[in-house]
Amino acid sequence: MSDTPGDLVTRFIGLLTARDLDGAAALVSEDFEYDNVPMGVTRGPRALHDTLSGFFALCTVVDWEILRQVSTGDLARGTVLNERDDRIEIHGRRATLPVAGVFEVRGGRITLWRDYFDKETLVAAMTPPVP
Amino acid sequence: MSDTPGDLVTRFIGLLTARDLDGAAALVSEDFEYDNVPMGVTRGPRALHDTLSGFFALCTVVDWEILRQVSTGDLARGTVLNERDDRIEIHGRRATLPVAGVFEVRGGRITLWRDYFDKETLVAAMTPPVP
Repeated sequence: MSDTPGDLVTRFIGLLTARDLDGAAALVSEDFEYDNVPMGVTRGPRALHDTLSGFFALCTVVDWEILRQVSTGDLARGTVLNERDDRIEIHGRRATLPVAGVFEVRGGRITLWRDYFDKETLVAAMTPPVP
Repeated sequence: MSDTPGDLVTRFIGLLTARDLDGAAALVSEDFEYDNVPMGVTRGPRALHDTLSGFFALCTVVDWEILRQVSTGDLARGTVLNERDDRIEIHGRRATLPVAGVFEVRGGRITLWRDYFDKETLVAAMTPPVP
């Protein structure tokens, strides 16, 4: 099992990269908030699952890497901030989305996942190339 | 004086909010890297000073708030990640730029400041309103 808030977030990101959305959704609380800052907020494990299953359906590669991660507190009440390169392949093109994530942990579950990134960089990666 | 990497970054952000660019530039290393992720990288204390003096000249209010900050290591070698609301007023309009920052500290100086944010949100805040 996960020992620290940082371990929990590392496991969560690993499950997402493995496209195990059921496993990832099991690590978040019922009142979980998923905030893609420039694009909006969804709430709850189901919304997490549905948002990412739609996105992952576009991706032929999902390879997210944690570059730096710092945490404080414990599994009862902790905070984790990380810096990531979220590498994906969509429409046959590789792209890297540079991201900084903020996570809150309460009672052993992730209650907040907030990602800071540039919307235009993501939209460009998702736009089909001109034939 | 600053005791931890987090204290150093808090002091740095405080100096910037006070528009004390000489004071802020004195806290960074000669090889300091300033990376505004969706907009590019500059290097050195002088580039920090010049980049922000140009930006601050547009601002009638600079009110940056650290919402969360987590750090590890010490002043010899430390890492700090934070989440901020960078509130500004430009062209008579208030705006909030949600930002996540990554900082590296070496030998008591800040060697890296990397900010993750949405470029379009910043550009919208800097664009003059239609008369």
